[in-house]
Amino acid sequence: MTPKIARFLATAQPATPCLVVDVDRVEENFHALRRALPLAQIYYAVKANPAAPVLSRLVGLDSHFDAASWEEVAMCLRAGAPATAISFGNTIKKVSAIRSAYAAGVRLYAFDCEEELEKLAENAPGSRVYCRVLVENEGADWPLSRKFGTSVEAAGALMRRAGALGLDPYGLSFHVGSQQRTTVAYEAAIARVGMLFTDLRDSGVDVRMLNLGGGFPVSYREEVPEIDAFGHAIMGAMTRVFGNALPEMIIEPGRFIVGDAGVVSSEVVLVSRRPTPSAPADPPRWVYLDIGRFGGLAETEGEAIRYRIATPHDGGPSGPVTIAGPTCDGADVLYDRAAYRLPLALRGGERVELLATGAYVSTYASQSFNGFAPLAEHYI
Amino acid sequence: MTPKIARFLATAQPATPCLVVDVDRVEENFHALRRALPLAQIYYAVKANPAAPVLSRLVGLDSHFDAASWEEVAMCLRAGAPATAISFGNTIKKVSAIRSAYAAGVRLYAFDCEEELEKLAENAPGSRVYCRVLVENEGADWPLSRKFGTSVEAAGALMRRAGALGLDPYGLSFHVGSQQRTTVAYEAAIARVGMLFTDLRDSGVDVRMLNLGGGFPVSYREEVPEIDAFGHAIMGAMTRVFGNALPEMIIEPGRFIVGDAGVVSSEVVLVSRRPTPSAPADPPRWVYLDIGRFGGLAETEGEAIRYRIATPHDGGPSGPVTIAGPTCDGADVLYDRAAYRLPLALRGGERVELLATGAYVSTYASQSFNGFAPLAEHYI
Repeated sequence: MTPKIARFLATAQPATPCLVVDVDRVEENFHALRRALPLAQIYYAVKANPAAPVLSRLVGLDSHFDAASWEEVAMCLRAGAPATAISFGNTIKKVSAIRSAYAAGVRLYAFDCEEELEKLAENAPGSRVYCRVLVENEGADWPLSRKFGTSVEAAGALMRRAGALGLDPYGLSFHVGSQQRTTVAYEAAIARVGMLFTDLRDSGVDVRMLNLGGGFPVSYREEVPEIDAFGHAIMGAMTRVFGNALPEMIIEPGRFIVGDAGVVSSEVVLVSRRPTPSAPADPPRWVYLDIGRFGGLAETEGEAIRYRIATPHDGGPSGPVTIAGPTCDGADVLYDRAAYRLPLALRGGERVELLATGAYVSTYASQSFNGFAPLAEHYI
Repeated sequence: MTPKIARFLATAQPATPCLVVDVDRVEENFHALRRALPLAQIYYAVKANPAAPVLSRLVGLDSHFDAASWEEVAMCLRAGAPATAISFGNTIKKVSAIRSAYAAGVRLYAFDCEEELEKLAENAPGSRVYCRVLVENEGADWPLSRKFGTSVEAAGALMRRAGALGLDPYGLSFHVGSQQRTTVAYEAAIARVGMLFTDLRDSGVDVRMLNLGGGFPVSYREEVPEIDAFGHAIMGAMTRVFGNALPEMIIEPGRFIVGDAGVVSSEVVLVSRRPTPSAPADPPRWVYLDIGRFGGLAETEGEAIRYRIATPHDGGPSGPVTIAGPTCDGADVLYDRAAYRLPLALRGGERVELLATGAYVSTYASQSFNGFAPLAEHYI
């Protein structure tokens, strides 16, 4: 938690649940990533947090933007981004969305299959396109495999087809999975997709760009490598494949830019020991918060993303807990098998903070499940 | 799909994705359940679909209401329900929510632990309370186990404590899990909780009500028993335990009342064959819709709830598909292992309908994940 967020929570005491984002930290993260990978153009993954104060700050830093929908394209434009700084990075796009983006001036589109390419040729003629290649997602806490990306073989054919359809076969992309904790995932993907890249170039396709996707991790409960380690590994792999003739490079960070800039403040609704037939003598302790899987913490599905939790009693004696959300839904359990411990002194009515929750929280929140409003947001 | 919904979709051609609910079917379902269990007071589970037209129609039928939050209590009051017809059924309640409900006149509350009981004694003095007992959820497609409910032994002690705290130890409740497809689950739970009920009554606790919860199923892809079968099984079990001295009975249907009254209309965004290393010769077919797990179809998590899907090509040759949502999130896959088949003629741009989607869809929708607005709703 940044000092600015700590001060805000202490003085403003905002109603819970709420998300507080330190926009200065967003800027610091942007600079850190730019330093780690100075040759890569940063396209901020808007879906991680599309709040206007975040987008405006990044526009001021000359960031580019990776949009998942026409609506996200429009958000970037409203924040002052030029259309030329926007990539429509979703491989699954409605025709109406392509048309709107093209009319607004967007000229860079992702695809991974013939059908999408034909939609682009018809509705975004002449645009630069890049083909997403499926790569391994091992090491990622929130993997993306199988839904997106095509094989190396199919990608080659699609890139040639793009040119034939009057599109500009600009580049190739991959994604190693979100919250990717290993640098070797990027190295392996660059080696694999880089070989296709050079093959295409050698065969006369005018491919110029490699999009390395996002996935750069944030320290949640477990520490992750520093961003410089990713920068170093990536540039090493790029040099091994391309030597001095480096292609244009794009990265699409989302989580890394906003994740640790945000904190969710939550009220403990209830602490109870729940008698169970399996452990009658030592009933497990449950802590219920006023935010859960349907209030924004969707990435706790399968206990994939494990946020650090700060309480007023940290340092005191602690014990194992199951942590759940406030709804009547049995699926609304955050952590049961992930061996969380919280202070034994914790009581209903107290406030806790879920750290590094700036990414993939605000927009995921259900609009009103169980009647609960989406969490409030404060950008400071 | 009801004829009224079919007509509306054909003539209005509403923008997709959208939910269309036939409020007359809501009323029919209410009557069917009342006929099947005439001795039970129906408390509609508001969380299944809290839309004002649904609540107003049910108010007109003298339904009671099961609210999961103060916000849901307020929705019922706005729809014209008297406070005396509302149960605050969530066992996890903020103190501020209890106070608001009490001030509004709500006098019926669920609990399942000592801490919650003390909150109720202090903030809703003299109210009728019922203790939720944990029962088996086997046979339910959306089970609720472990997060709610206490042991039979603990419930007995808690009910005595309720009286000592000045609360009215009104009843006991259980929940056999949502989309419960077996009648035996109710029979077993009634036998188990009924024994505690009679023990408590025999020992002088003035317990008068048994709340059987909800869980009554809807026919999705698989057929389920008729509601009369549930009514018959429940009344048989009640008579076996209580003879002629039946307690007051409450049921809390949500899915059964609104589920098959709604249809989601969706656009196919993309149909593609995805080359995979495991099946290079016969690449799997993916169908991407403009609604997914984060657009309202949250109950497809784990492929638990399997909606029937109608297409313009039904009856023609079909083949296996994986069905996914429109977002850039790899977790946004609806059905991959559930052996869905769709017509081979299906193409991007066409409309499909997801049937029996009136429950647990509208409010679950994320407020703007990937920039997509929550699905529109039409009540006809």
